[in-house]
Amino acid sequence: MASFPEEQTVIGISAPGGPEVLVPERRPVPRPGPGEVLVRVRAAGVNRPDVVQRQGRYPAPPGASDIPGLEVAGEVVAVGEGVTQPALGAHVTALVTGGGYAQYCIADAALALPIPDGLDFVAAAAIPETVFTVWSNVFDRGRLAAGETLLVHGGTSGIGTTAIQLGKAFGARVLTTAGSPEKCAACLRLGADLAIDYREQDFVAAVKEATDGRGANVILDMVGGDYIARNYQAAAQDGRIVQIAFLKGAKVEIDFTRLMLKRFTHTGSTLRSRPLAEKVVIAEALREKVWPLLSTGRCLPVIHTVLPLEEAAAAHELMESSGHIGKIVLAVN
Amino acid sequence: MASFPEEQTVIGISAPGGPEVLVPERRPVPRPGPGEVLVRVRAAGVNRPDVVQRQGRYPAPPGASDIPGLEVAGEVVAVGEGVTQPALGAHVTALVTGGGYAQYCIADAALALPIPDGLDFVAAAAIPETVFTVWSNVFDRGRLAAGETLLVHGGTSGIGTTAIQLGKAFGARVLTTAGSPEKCAACLRLGADLAIDYREQDFVAAVKEATDGRGANVILDMVGGDYIARNYQAAAQDGRIVQIAFLKGAKVEIDFTRLMLKRFTHTGSTLRSRPLAEKVVIAEALREKVWPLLSTGRCLPVIHTVLPLEEAAAAHELMESSGHIGKIVLAVN
Repeated sequence: MASFPEEQTVIGISAPGGPEVLVPERRPVPRPGPGEVLVRVRAAGVNRPDVVQRQGRYPAPPGASDIPGLEVAGEVVAVGEGVTQPALGAHVTALVTGGGYAQYCIADAALALPIPDGLDFVAAAAIPETVFTVWSNVFDRGRLAAGETLLVHGGTSGIGTTAIQLGKAFGARVLTTAGSPEKCAACLRLGADLAIDYREQDFVAAVKEATDGRGANVILDMVGGDYIARNYQAAAQDGRIVQIAFLKGAKVEIDFTRLMLKRFTHTGSTLRSRPLAEKVVIAEALREKVWPLLSTGRCLPVIHTVLPLEEAAAAHELMESSGHIGKIVLAVN
Repeated sequence: MASFPEEQTVIGISAPGGPEVLVPERRPVPRPGPGEVLVRVRAAGVNRPDVVQRQGRYPAPPGASDIPGLEVAGEVVAVGEGVTQPALGAHVTALVTGGGYAQYCIADAALALPIPDGLDFVAAAAIPETVFTVWSNVFDRGRLAAGETLLVHGGTSGIGTTAIQLGKAFGARVLTTAGSPEKCAACLRLGADLAIDYREQDFVAAVKEATDGRGANVILDMVGGDYIARNYQAAAQDGRIVQIAFLKGAKVEIDFTRLMLKRFTHTGSTLRSRPLAEKVVIAEALREKVWPLLSTGRCLPVIHTVLPLEEAAAAHELMESSGHIGKIVLAVN
């Protein structure tokens, strides 16, 4: 077994609140249980749910670490009972249920995947949360097929940049919304067929125009609020609207007539709370379908900036400003 | 070709309004086009959409007859170009896009199915609209599986009585709501495992109690209004809510958080407006999966009452009173 210290530095949430509540703490290094591995973290991705957890509105699920952080990349330095893969010393990128903002983090062995060829720890740490989310929502729940039209809201978010690239890689036409000309340009560089500046244009009209009035077959939405009714207008006959967050709220007045007349489906999911067995199924699909795209550079994580672990508060401030394009990653010494 | 007259009696809608606007008229007997058959109608089913059409709130789709009536049973008296099945003289039950309240009605040959063994014209006329609706919504869209729990609202409606029987026949546990002790008793006689009198009991609490808190896997709803939010509460993790009408309205304030956290699906459909090709696919599934159940008496249409064609207005009055249990059928001379 590789050596690791008794204690480590982590970023704790000292109390629910603003970014400033994220403070370095000393904690014991955890030991991997059966089926788990201990990862020496080299980089950790920052995600929206971390922000909501910090605000006290998204408590860690039962059994999960109270330390924020849902994805890490690093080396396996200890393996629990029954673990054959990954091996000690392997370089992995892992989806975790918490604890990522730390020097050492426990991961389920089945969710600690090999780092795709050519990617460093920072790029690798930016992968799990977005590819698990996009795959399970756009392709599993949304059943996106080649030749269909995918509408991606928040095109320059980590989720958005991944959804644009995967949508294109699997043969869909990809329309996206973003909040500035610069962000729209970034979406187009990633392969989007159309980028709609939502500050300038009504996305419903733009989507209708781009699809000869038919609408989008799959809509990936993390905005909610007034976007819900507008998604109902923008959806195609037999469309699928998949909700992964509600940045503008979840409670709205809706006329459901279109849902019935257009026979579309409104569904959604959160990743963190899903049972391990379901995440393992997604991981298997990712190894087969998405890892080759990452290893050949066909799809690549978009990194906005890298900050040291100790500056997690600044990373959250940046995420809440929505000024970023792509992922924010913490580098860990 | 069998003989048929030039003219016939039909029930027209003299103007949008109450049941009294349904009046007998003389009209020419239509000729079947390619792929169509002419049915000498012996019985015609009465359905909710007929009422809404009469009120002027559900116009006939393009190409459909303006005469109400979505299902008929009778004999084939003329066949159009290219029709090999059903043959002249065959006894059929047909899903039609309109024109059923008449002595003669055009049907697509592919949707004119043989009358199941042992059923008379009245029973046969009560089948198509409910079995097409229940099959395509509960089994196709809703993917009900054996061992799952189905919640059927409006258990004593034509749709409800069919959904209860088909749900049980395919191995589901069936919970249902109805509006009186008599109606609840009727649901239980049809095989429902639990009948909830919605005037006495909160169906959300009753469903939760009956499922150890898990909720219903599939919910078939034609009520809408406040039922939508309550269905969101009553749905199980990964559940499917299928909306086939909105008797209490389609516009409500909803909190969509549960949709995401429970990962359920809200969808719906209307039958009449679907393309013929999709109806033909449903018809093929029905021949294979449901006709054997009808022919062996395992599932049977529930007939509330039979009225002569000329009393269509009284039939609508009865349907709007919601006093019926099962189908209302018009007998045609």
